[in-house]
Amino acid sequence: MTRKLFIPGPIDVRDDVLQKMATPMIGHRSKDASVLQESISKKLQKLFYTESEILLSTSSGSGLMEGAIRSCTSKKAAVFSCGAFGDRWYKMAVTNNVKADLYKVDMGKAIDPEMVDRVLATGEYDLITIQHNETSTGITNPVEEIAEVVRKYDNIVFCVDAVSSAGGVKIEVDKLGIDILITSTQKALGLPPGMSICTFSEKAIRRAGTVEFRGTYLDLLDIYKYLKKKNYQYPSTPSISHMYALDYQLDNILNEGLDNRFERHQAMAETVRAWAIKHFKIFTDQNHLSNTLTVIENNQNINVSQLNSKLMEKGMQIANGYGDLKEKTFRISHMGDYQIEDIQNLLNTIDEILGF
Amino acid sequence: MTRKLFIPGPIDVRDDVLQKMATPMIGHRSKDASVLQESISKKLQKLFYTESEILLSTSSGSGLMEGAIRSCTSKKAAVFSCGAFGDRWYKMAVTNNVKADLYKVDMGKAIDPEMVDRVLATGEYDLITIQHNETSTGITNPVEEIAEVVRKYDNIVFCVDAVSSAGGVKIEVDKLGIDILITSTQKALGLPPGMSICTFSEKAIRRAGTVEFRGTYLDLLDIYKYLKKKNYQYPSTPSISHMYALDYQLDNILNEGLDNRFERHQAMAETVRAWAIKHFKIFTDQNHLSNTLTVIENNQNINVSQLNSKLMEKGMQIANGYGDLKEKTFRISHMGDYQIEDIQNLLNTIDEILGF
Repeated sequence: MTRKLFIPGPIDVRDDVLQKMATPMIGHRSKDASVLQESISKKLQKLFYTESEILLSTSSGSGLMEGAIRSCTSKKAAVFSCGAFGDRWYKMAVTNNVKADLYKVDMGKAIDPEMVDRVLATGEYDLITIQHNETSTGITNPVEEIAEVVRKYDNIVFCVDAVSSAGGVKIEVDKLGIDILITSTQKALGLPPGMSICTFSEKAIRRAGTVEFRGTYLDLLDIYKYLKKKNYQYPSTPSISHMYALDYQLDNILNEGLDNRFERHQAMAETVRAWAIKHFKIFTDQNHLSNTLTVIENNQNINVSQLNSKLMEKGMQIANGYGDLKEKTFRISHMGDYQIEDIQNLLNTIDEILGF
Repeated sequence: MTRKLFIPGPIDVRDDVLQKMATPMIGHRSKDASVLQESISKKLQKLFYTESEILLSTSSGSGLMEGAIRSCTSKKAAVFSCGAFGDRWYKMAVTNNVKADLYKVDMGKAIDPEMVDRVLATGEYDLITIQHNETSTGITNPVEEIAEVVRKYDNIVFCVDAVSSAGGVKIEVDKLGIDILITSTQKALGLPPGMSICTFSEKAIRRAGTVEFRGTYLDLLDIYKYLKKKNYQYPSTPSISHMYALDYQLDNILNEGLDNRFERHQAMAETVRAWAIKHFKIFTDQNHLSNTLTVIENNQNINVSQLNSKLMEKGMQIANGYGDLKEKTFRISHMGDYQIEDIQNLLNTIDEILGF
């Protein structure tokens, strides 16, 4: 039985999109491959409101997060973390011998733009990283306010992890001055996992040119240069199946209309929040709630694992809390191609199981 | 029109295998994901004649090549190159600040085991890399003889790129003492590109433990530890579509019978070689010919690009020479699930076009 996945990725993929994963192969050095990538790039530029070049990487979102911090930190990176994925970015810096400091806030809280201001005012840093959407806590950081702070300083490369939000929430890359926006296929874009995506600004390109040891496979500049020189092709063989599915799904997304899509995500989020407030409590700071994922505090002491087992018998699945938050919280994702009715159906089923 | 690809990857994928790429999603932290990976690992251990643990990486083969040389070089790497992919391994070392020396032979020649012996006798190195099959020149290096040399020395981590041969040619990993054998999905395994595979020996595991900056996403030890701790799961979200297709295709491969499969590849190679000798000349040293790919010297001064255009009109495609060898050579791959008749049909079509 196929299960409806309300976990924060992978999520369900529409049948017509899945079928595109079964497209017959083409050579990655063929004209067809160039045409395919150019088509994808143009559509992603619309989705991200940017004129920056688009890079794909056959890797999970983590691959490009690592590539970004390593390729573009010359002096030192300021890593702002409000959960597990912020911490992961710091680990990537450390394991690559990239100088970085970690600035953390409590789980469930958002990054404070004033903290970003204080940190950047030291003049020690030339790159910052934040999560647009922190998958472990359901925070959407105030990216507009943080962007305003970043713009006060010269020469800061601004990296944003939007793995669990891009495609479901409006992020205006150029207007905000984001240099590297990173996402991957298996979340709000509604595709299978296996490919990650980023924008790569002129400032980021110039910066990477000053960094000595950037590696190869995840070196954003190496990918960019090849793409430019070889008419939208990649230095090594990409996942052509994902490229076909992505190109097709971007049509679906643009046909739905970006504003419609973002509104649908907001409506799904509001439905889950209303239910959560009625029966439990929302774990996350209410001023910074995510439109793609809700993290609920288990103040009723239900057995989350047991609830999930029963849901699975009924063909659905939610996520337990992340790491130390297991059983203390649980997570419901509402992203990709789900409709309000799918969300309502899930919540009704939980009500039934828990006797609400 | 779908084209039959006789390029050295991606190659044609059988329809039933392509359909597995469209399998609905599962959570990558679910029991189903663990069961799937364990099944894949057991089958790949049979294919590679090894008890070493199997690691998958959502990346091209280049990703794991870089991960191997970076994760496991403590003193210095000796990179033996007989073509473009050997050179690429050296570039990966340099861009990661990994100490390495490059030992090259002329294009079309194989790595000489005596050269390996002389190099290792210096005592400077603790890791070596070779291509089992060099995709730019059609060389299959004498891996058995090189393995015999490597065994004379203590504590050498032996890395072998079998991206364009594993699955089509017998490589007995444990018997040869290969520590890290690397391949990817889109060549002799007969799958779409997007996932790479390696074996990871106890010696390689111990060595990686002594290396400080291994990065994160391509760090073989990080992947290995997570796999062991979390019951065959991965630190970041893998390409589940590829895992389903790989698991299924490995059954096809094992059902064909490994010896049958390797013999089929040899028969296809012999067919192409006989044709090449009749009309052209084989570019590659005749003592080290590849069973998955033949590189033909264009001593008739045909226009290779034009030949390929005409082939494409007839629904087939071969590859021009790699890099500087363009037009001077051309390449016909014979790997994956092609049968002798497919190869014969290609050669007949070329004959027709060229008026042989």
